[in-house]
Amino acid sequence: MSIISLCGKKPLRYFQGMDRELTIINAKIFAAHTPQGFLEDHFIKIGGGRILALGSMAAYGPGNCGKLLDARGALVMPGLVNGHNHAAMSLFRGLADDLPLMPWLEQHIFPAEARFVRPEMVYWCTKLAAAEMILSGTTTVADAYFHADEAAAAFTEAGMRAVAAHGVIDFPAPGVPDPAENVAAVEHFIDRWLGADLVTPAVFAHSPYTCSSRTLVRAKELARSRNVPFFIHLAETEAEKGMISDKWQGSPAAYLHDLGVLDERTVCVHGVWLDGHDISLLALSGAAVVTCPESNMKLAAGMAPVAELLSAGVRLGLGTDGCASNNDLDLFGEMDMCAKLHKVRSLDPAALKARDVLDMATVAGARLLGFADAGVVAAGMLADLIIVDLAQPHLTPFYGVDNLVYAADGADVRSVIINGRLVMEERRILTFDVAEVMDRVAAMARDVRRAAPGW
Amino acid sequence: MSIISLCGKKPLRYFQGMDRELTIINAKIFAAHTPQGFLEDHFIKIGGGRILALGSMAAYGPGNCGKLLDARGALVMPGLVNGHNHAAMSLFRGLADDLPLMPWLEQHIFPAEARFVRPEMVYWCTKLAAAEMILSGTTTVADAYFHADEAAAAFTEAGMRAVAAHGVIDFPAPGVPDPAENVAAVEHFIDRWLGADLVTPAVFAHSPYTCSSRTLVRAKELARSRNVPFFIHLAETEAEKGMISDKWQGSPAAYLHDLGVLDERTVCVHGVWLDGHDISLLALSGAAVVTCPESNMKLAAGMAPVAELLSAGVRLGLGTDGCASNNDLDLFGEMDMCAKLHKVRSLDPAALKARDVLDMATVAGARLLGFADAGVVAAGMLADLIIVDLAQPHLTPFYGVDNLVYAADGADVRSVIINGRLVMEERRILTFDVAEVMDRVAAMARDVRRAAPGW
Repeated sequence: MSIISLCGKKPLRYFQGMDRELTIINAKIFAAHTPQGFLEDHFIKIGGGRILALGSMAAYGPGNCGKLLDARGALVMPGLVNGHNHAAMSLFRGLADDLPLMPWLEQHIFPAEARFVRPEMVYWCTKLAAAEMILSGTTTVADAYFHADEAAAAFTEAGMRAVAAHGVIDFPAPGVPDPAENVAAVEHFIDRWLGADLVTPAVFAHSPYTCSSRTLVRAKELARSRNVPFFIHLAETEAEKGMISDKWQGSPAAYLHDLGVLDERTVCVHGVWLDGHDISLLALSGAAVVTCPESNMKLAAGMAPVAELLSAGVRLGLGTDGCASNNDLDLFGEMDMCAKLHKVRSLDPAALKARDVLDMATVAGARLLGFADAGVVAAGMLADLIIVDLAQPHLTPFYGVDNLVYAADGADVRSVIINGRLVMEERRILTFDVAEVMDRVAAMARDVRRAAPGW
Repeated sequence: MSIISLCGKKPLRYFQGMDRELTIINAKIFAAHTPQGFLEDHFIKIGGGRILALGSMAAYGPGNCGKLLDARGALVMPGLVNGHNHAAMSLFRGLADDLPLMPWLEQHIFPAEARFVRPEMVYWCTKLAAAEMILSGTTTVADAYFHADEAAAAFTEAGMRAVAAHGVIDFPAPGVPDPAENVAAVEHFIDRWLGADLVTPAVFAHSPYTCSSRTLVRAKELARSRNVPFFIHLAETEAEKGMISDKWQGSPAAYLHDLGVLDERTVCVHGVWLDGHDISLLALSGAAVVTCPESNMKLAAGMAPVAELLSAGVRLGLGTDGCASNNDLDLFGEMDMCAKLHKVRSLDPAALKARDVLDMATVAGARLLGFADAGVVAAGMLADLIIVDLAQPHLTPFYGVDNLVYAADGADVRSVIINGRLVMEERRILTFDVAEVMDRVAAMARDVRRAAPGW
């Protein structure tokens, strides 16, 4: 087996500001192009934030490549990419479940947000979400919320790769009391964070029904001017379809297309209520869709036409949405739910294959966020990798990688490497004090519970 | 807070053949009747296989009640009840995924079963399934397969409570080469196991389309004569509905009703293709339904009318089905999938509440299997309990027990008590050597893979 080795001739650009080196040995490695989806007995050398070399253990020469991780009995795969989250909303996990959308929003989530969303809350609750995501194998997240400076700081300190999108909405919002300043606030945020190591700043226009046409166009112009991703909730509920149809005589997707907002840096989140024409518009414009099946199921929003989007060539990612409507951030569970939901929706067990969902949660999800060099275990790629322990009853036997979707869960992830740095080792997070974060959030939750109605 | 204490005056019948005593302290305990679903700071005393006493820690007096477990930061809840499994099929976990039903069965599962299902295979693969179930918080399983003596022995050695149902089918089957002997084989099996401590023997008639009317009636008569549960796959696919309609001019449920097979000891598994009349027949007869949402989704069988069954008063349990069509046995994931699926199916977020699903997976599931005294954390009940670690990011905050459905997973279970015996402690199974079982099954899986087509 050939080795693509950069280890001897380290390209300088890989090492700017970084001196971490790691070598993983005795690993199964994820390999989408093989029948089983993995290769046995490999080593991987990591330095400067990237995969420097990999190959069969038969060709492994120890050398001085830093810390050694023995992955015997485990599989090394690309870290998972969460295409949509509102990380700080972890504070509201399970605050109000099993309710119709409007009472849920109006009697629980909106009042709780109005009272409790503060910079400090966003910082600590985003860190809690980062802990949960790292512990369940997510290495990159697209987050969408307010007080985005605090979110970006939390991800940076956690050592997670993040696209931190600052919210735009035509109402008073956390940190942006005057809606006339909504786009300007995001502009300042972007300019503070452009060029950061782990964080990509971005724009999050809340939805076609909470932003005016003018706001949507200005927000997209800002995103274009800085060449950053533009996120928007799109066609989540049937009610939204009705609202847009009333004001624009068309679907939410057609409305965005008419405004000129759809292009290859636009990420439409949810996309539940899309018809064939909408799917064509998305495919032609190059806009991507991030589906959030668990949130759509829990809120009974509907089932997105994921198989149809895939057939039409629309770029697809997978997201958890925030904890308030999921109620967790485990992408292993999300992959399972996604694959199974779309089989039963179409009454076709071949409809959405495990491999399709793995692609959405890794390389395709990374690319639609703008990371062209992530999501594949190959030399030169970003070293965002997770080590999954297969030596467990529920992963025995392991005929192939389908069981990462249908049988694994987040707790099977032993170690996590992000940007070449060991962020979690044997389920211990190395970058920050998780117990402190849980204590801080639990204290805030006691205040929430005291204030919440009906308890 | 009152204490219902039996600890001082141990009733003799609780102690026949048992001398294990355990006391859990500092626990949150599951309490379905409270707003949050749990109570803080409780102790539980266990002896003779039952809960002897429980109460607030303020009223706790140490005494000599055996081994002490400190559950600070954790929740004690009833062990989960898996209403349908084919445990030995764990050998085929992920052997063939994402295939239409007929190629899946005919080109993969049936040939693999014909070649590899042997008494030794059933013994080891059932033990593997027992390990997976214990590790994910299941304390009782209804298993349905062949070579049921080996399955029953495996569950006994694992220390799991099991209803072991021996298969009846009008074809040559593992251990029953002559279909004329199918009911007699089950009769002998039942008579060997009736009265066993942990295992309840039972009858599993495969389906209305693989058993003749005569076989179904004889199998049910056998179950009645021994007063044991009778299981049958019912209305799993639309194709089955067509087959039964062709031969009986009615639905599968109406067919069973006409044969006199439906009563309160009959457990119908799947129940996907049921109409309003079928649901009435089930409700009136007292027959129970075990739904297996993940399997029904993965094989694209359809979505069972679970909310309608619940409204009609049909007793409902939750099952994983076998690993070949799931591909795991984690009932925490199954609860999540079940609640979310039925919300989106009915476009009503209040359709199937977390509490409904918790009920199905605990007390309701236990009762429909014949265990009237299980599934509730209360004095006098069977001590089938699990300790769930809440001190984790994905379970923070913990406003209420809904998050056991929407955020927890099997790996959160720290310790498991079955029949008063500590079977798993801090994720280590105490009753058997799990590594040996994984090795044995992995060796069999290598043979399966060599023999399987298309690899």
